Amino acid sequence: MNLRPQNFNITREQKEKLNGHKSFVVWLTGFSGSGKSTIANALEVALFERGVRSFCLDGDNTRLGINKDLGFSTEDRTENIRRVAEMAKLFLESGTIVITSFISPLISDRAMAKSIIGDADFVEVFINCPLAICENRDVKGLYAKARRGEIKNFTGIDSPFEPPIKADIELLTAKNSVQECVEIILKEIEGKLSC
Amino acid sequence: MNLRPQNFNITREQKEKLNGHKSFVVWLTGFSGSGKSTIANALEVALFERGVRSFCLDGDNTRLGINKDLGFSTEDRTENIRRVAEMAKLFLESGTIVITSFISPLISDRAMAKSIIGDADFVEVFINCPLAICENRDVKGLYAKARRGEIKNFTGIDSPFEPPIKADIELLTAKNSVQECVEIILKEIEGKLSC
Repeated sequence: MNLRPQNFNITREQKEKLNGHKSFVVWLTGFSGSGKSTIANALEVALFERGVRSFCLDGDNTRLGINKDLGFSTEDRTENIRRVAEMAKLFLESGTIVITSFISPLISDRAMAKSIIGDADFVEVFINCPLAICENRDVKGLYAKARRGEIKNFTGIDSPFEPPIKADIELLTAKNSVQECVEIILKEIEGKLSC
Repeated sequence: MNLRPQNFNITREQKEKLNGHKSFVVWLTGFSGSGKSTIANALEVALFERGVRSFCLDGDNTRLGINKDLGFSTEDRTENIRRVAEMAKLFLESGTIVITSFISPLISDRAMAKSIIGDADFVEVFINCPLAICENRDVKGLYAKARRGEIKNFTGIDSPFEPPIKADIELLTAKNSVQECVEIILKEIEGKLSC
């Protein structure tokens, strides 16, 4: 390979200083319908109100764009997570907090993401909502399709979900309100914000 | 496909307002060794000094990360540019100016990038430096390798470069200094900056 990393004059630290806060990744993991995107959205609003720059990377959005060549096989899901982690890392370098909402069902894939992003910058948040409740909500009608066999490799139906062994934050979205969940995250990341 | 775009509560416009400037993409195209990364770097410094948020996407950097699965065949180069454009678009959504430094030798690939990013947000900058000068500089020793046949599909040697028919900005890096080039860009994009 004839490549070498370019070192740019303006460092991540300088960008963070301009923004007035540090950057890191808040990685949400959980079933479809567990509330990842809702929490991501509400967290972004809360951060924005504090003048904190964040950006949401979302499974649906990235799969319609940069990852539209990928399906839902185990291999493609791993590649999906790899690319998301690499993108998150670039946003980190720009001084932006990243909130990712991906089912990311495999411990090995989340470990890969953490290794790409860096341990110190990776906050794992387990959006813990029982499958039965997610399926009952079925906001997008996907569980019904998966049960009818119209969608293959659907997490929780015919594809595994491996919960984190020890997440940095665990949110019980079947019990706690969106606002309560956001406050739990904010309290947890507060110490990481200041430059 | 069971995907639909997520609409997030904090819009690009709000993020731009928080930053105090609009976001768009400055797309640099030109031979290896023409000065793309140098100009990108100097432009970022100049913008940062004005409190403007920008981020550099670089061929070398992205190819060591998100695009490390891609080679230099025409097909892989196109996929490289597609992913870069999709990433640039995400940075736009975050309110950040993006400066891309990719040879991006084909008119069709740059047209694709422009179509992904959006016409209004795409500033094409032709880093126009004669091949002989780029080859003579040969900062990374790549032209020598390409001439010896050790690198295949090298732009200008055994792979074509299609100059823009009408770039938004054309920089003659063999004549003008880095600082002069940056000032030309700044003057051109000044009107696009204000919210």
